[in-house]
Amino acid sequence: VLIAIDAMGGDFAPGEVLRGVALAIDRGFVKPEELALVGIEAKVEEARVAAKCPPVRVVHATQTVDMSEKPAEAFRRKKDSSMVRAIELAKGGEAQAVISLGNTGAFVACAQLLLGLLPGVKRSGIAVTLQTKGGPCTVIDVGANIHCKPQHLFQYGAMASTFARDVLAVQAPRIGLLNIGEEEGKGNELVKETRDLFDGSPLNFVGNIEGQDLFGGRCDVVVCEGFVGNVVLKVAEGLGSFVTSEMKALLASMTTDKNAAASSNGGKLKELFEGFVRRLDYAEYGGAPLLGVNGLVMIGHGRSDARAVMNAIRVSRDFIKAGVNDHIRALIKPTSLAGSESSSAD
Amino acid sequence: VLIAIDAMGGDFAPGEVLRGVALAIDRGFVKPEELALVGIEAKVEEARVAAKCPPVRVVHATQTVDMSEKPAEAFRRKKDSSMVRAIELAKGGEAQAVISLGNTGAFVACAQLLLGLLPGVKRSGIAVTLQTKGGPCTVIDVGANIHCKPQHLFQYGAMASTFARDVLAVQAPRIGLLNIGEEEGKGNELVKETRDLFDGSPLNFVGNIEGQDLFGGRCDVVVCEGFVGNVVLKVAEGLGSFVTSEMKALLASMTTDKNAAASSNGGKLKELFEGFVRRLDYAEYGGAPLLGVNGLVMIGHGRSDARAVMNAIRVSRDFIKAGVNDHIRALIKPTSLAGSESSSAD
Repeated sequence: VLIAIDAMGGDFAPGEVLRGVALAIDRGFVKPEELALVGIEAKVEEARVAAKCPPVRVVHATQTVDMSEKPAEAFRRKKDSSMVRAIELAKGGEAQAVISLGNTGAFVACAQLLLGLLPGVKRSGIAVTLQTKGGPCTVIDVGANIHCKPQHLFQYGAMASTFARDVLAVQAPRIGLLNIGEEEGKGNELVKETRDLFDGSPLNFVGNIEGQDLFGGRCDVVVCEGFVGNVVLKVAEGLGSFVTSEMKALLASMTTDKNAAASSNGGKLKELFEGFVRRLDYAEYGGAPLLGVNGLVMIGHGRSDARAVMNAIRVSRDFIKAGVNDHIRALIKPTSLAGSESSSAD
Repeated sequence: VLIAIDAMGGDFAPGEVLRGVALAIDRGFVKPEELALVGIEAKVEEARVAAKCPPVRVVHATQTVDMSEKPAEAFRRKKDSSMVRAIELAKGGEAQAVISLGNTGAFVACAQLLLGLLPGVKRSGIAVTLQTKGGPCTVIDVGANIHCKPQHLFQYGAMASTFARDVLAVQAPRIGLLNIGEEEGKGNELVKETRDLFDGSPLNFVGNIEGQDLFGGRCDVVVCEGFVGNVVLKVAEGLGSFVTSEMKALLASMTTDKNAAASSNGGKLKELFEGFVRRLDYAEYGGAPLLGVNGLVMIGHGRSDARAVMNAIRVSRDFIKAGVNDHIRALIKPTSLAGSESSSAD
């Protein structure tokens, strides 16, 4: 395994990236020789030393991609950026995975253009895993593809259920289609036609689900088009952070009561609260794979902390070791899942 | 003011509806003579007595609309249902508002068919008000219209901002367009074209917003198409109830510690927690108006409790007293807001 990491991507790069790398090495998720850090060498080295991270190979790249940069421009103008160079390591076969916490749009566009798609796959999709009452729930797509066709959504279900089984250890993942009602016949044309494709397939499709089911443990994979998935994910993040700030205020008002603060109760409350916040935390799964591309592209949140970086490395390693892309290839290629156009177009 | 209430609509009807009516009368939000309860007379009377509600006029209707009934069928086959009869009171001018917690799809369809739209309005939209960090935030549409055109979304913004100003007392409500990025040029064709309409209008449009802004206080009105709005609302509900159940488990684990339970801390925590849950609670605004119809149609959540029913009555009264529909008429009719087709079609 060799994982290429865009050391300059993310709001707190390269410092937080290197702290995450150090954590991953320390916990035994990877060996230093299994990593390649791509970025401005002097800055990466400085951050590495500050993070007390053991020596790791650094691949120098002179440019960085801005968070606000347009995807197409990043691809055209930033040939020597840490992001593009990291993807090229994967393209050349030198690395099996590439991780970036940088500009998501640019990362998706550059990865698609440089790596291409797996045979038979029509579109790539970003698969984010949420923690819910019923364990992990993987939502695909959250923004790679806002012009979805039924065949795209159908393949998303197939790919994400392979990921959930291989990496998240979910047995026979239940696939749900995000809709505005459970009954057949509900929703717009896109979801109605997608439902027909799932119904006629061997996949473990449980039918339409609604927004509230996302956190209710009714399914393990939620399929939706990128516009809806992106909004849903951000609403959940926004509500989560609203709840967290309210809870912090609640805790603060508790501890202004000096007796309360002094009691063992106060400490216990704090501890329980922290566990609760962690359950809502995106960092648990570290990153979101861009499923369908010919390679492993792991997208990290720009605000990722060291723990999220560590988990992105861990999930990348599991993804490669489990052979997820081989399984997707085997599932999509020879079957009806590749769709009617596959024989000619691919 | 006369408000017609479908006494048989909702998961806990007629009991919870009558308890809500009793509360609204008790708090002075309405007088008994300002209400008409529509439903199976004997059942409504029984529930009224059980709720210790003062005598209210009951309009007998022999049928009820089922929660699972298809909207078109409800309209065709349930002419003597409590829902249809209640709407007819508004159509005849006898009532100024109609409230139902029953089958939302059927209520929307019957109301649109019986009452029609305000002059110049292209489509009606459901406006739900959420509690957020920045105060109330009204989201339109959450499911009345899943085949939206830019002109529909544009009018939604105009109507919901009138509602927010008149009923929620928000000065110059800021309108945001729900999108997958803030930058101009982001998103699908629908949002791009809608943005152009807002940009060229006198409305207080603040641009694209993203999912996380819904609870962040960046705007007072959020415009989106019905599919997205419906999913977003239900995701928020699902996450809210997930958080609430987690918190209850946390509280329970606190109180198994007997010393903790005995301390004043335990009681204070419970009280603070209840305040917190209330802040997340949809019941605060009681119901969601179907904006754009020629009348006031207030949609209640099927799971509404007495407090939500009381608040739906209170908001209905405020809506009528403030003359919201007159203001919408004045805003839409003579201006470009009515769109290019208005002169011929309406």
